[in-house]
Amino acid sequence: MNEIQEVFSVLALSGSLRRASSNSALLQVAAVLAPPHLQIRQYRQWAALPAFNPDDEGGEVESVLHFRAAVAAADAILIASPEYAHGVPGAFKNALDWLVGSGELINKPVAALNASGRALHAQSSLLDTLAMMNADVVLPASLTVALPTNQLDAAAMLAEAPIVEGLHQALAALGAHLSHIAQPH
Amino acid sequence: MNEIQEVFSVLALSGSLRRASSNSALLQVAAVLAPPHLQIRQYRQWAALPAFNPDDEGGEVESVLHFRAAVAAADAILIASPEYAHGVPGAFKNALDWLVGSGELINKPVAALNASGRALHAQSSLLDTLAMMNADVVLPASLTVALPTNQLDAAAMLAEAPIVEGLHQALAALGAHLSHIAQPH
Repeated sequence: MNEIQEVFSVLALSGSLRRASSNSALLQVAAVLAPPHLQIRQYRQWAALPAFNPDDEGGEVESVLHFRAAVAAADAILIASPEYAHGVPGAFKNALDWLVGSGELINKPVAALNASGRALHAQSSLLDTLAMMNADVVLPASLTVALPTNQLDAAAMLAEAPIVEGLHQALAALGAHLSHIAQPH
Repeated sequence: MNEIQEVFSVLALSGSLRRASSNSALLQVAAVLAPPHLQIRQYRQWAALPAFNPDDEGGEVESVLHFRAAVAAADAILIASPEYAHGVPGAFKNALDWLVGSGELINKPVAALNASGRALHAQSSLLDTLAMMNADVVLPASLTVALPTNQLDAAAMLAEAPIVEGLHQALAALGAHLSHIAQPH
């Protein structure tokens, strides 16, 4: 008898808006390598969010509501973000700030890939922010998948065994975590 | 014979866009208490900056050019920023991200007031980012001026001796630093 395997939807967020962003490419590769029970799609529209202002809570613009709904609907979030001036890219942190009061990240499984073995400030600060927001941070899936250069596109990454191996590990850990919490207790 | 004292222009940046922001109020009070050789004015238009995208460098929109020009024209920057989810407010960090490549903060005297004795993550992360951007971080002026509540407006702050005293110290330290570096060597 075959077991029916649940399919999990994973919202992928690249912290960089650059067209040739290696973080975005890494998430593209993750979508290609994902096992069938993980469906990964990137959400780039967070770039259009206005500056967070607590006064606007309750009267949010459409882009904010759309972003919150996308996060709420996902079974998990997969982040890959660069480091700017020793910190999380401000615009990406701004997107997270819009979720603090409304709570879409509370208990939401979130993994954060780090594409650079050297950019440790932003990664630790991002994980700290996610923990503070009561996200379910999946550390075994939050791996450093160090890129040899930031010039690789998705096709070139797929040809790099350490990148493929790192992503396989991270995705397996994320999938295992989602299957585990989806089990009836 | 009277010495002619140079007047320094200080651009004040509140990290909060809230109308009743206590960080904005603290900067208002700083402007009131400032000695005559420090002219402090707040710049709030950073709220309109788009999400930083390295691809847009060279083709920046007007709001970015206006912000950079305001920072470049100031003798010093005075920041007061809240902490959101253990980090610098994303939208405010986004404004700083727009200055990394263009370099307006390089060697610019910058002080960051901390309005909360408890919010230490954002303050240390902000100072780290400013140092990474090669700003001239004026630590003796980067004081914690702890507010007893976040409900005080500028008038109420002016009635609180510890706040007035803290601001006097910070402004004196900033003024001394500016006078020192303005001296012919």
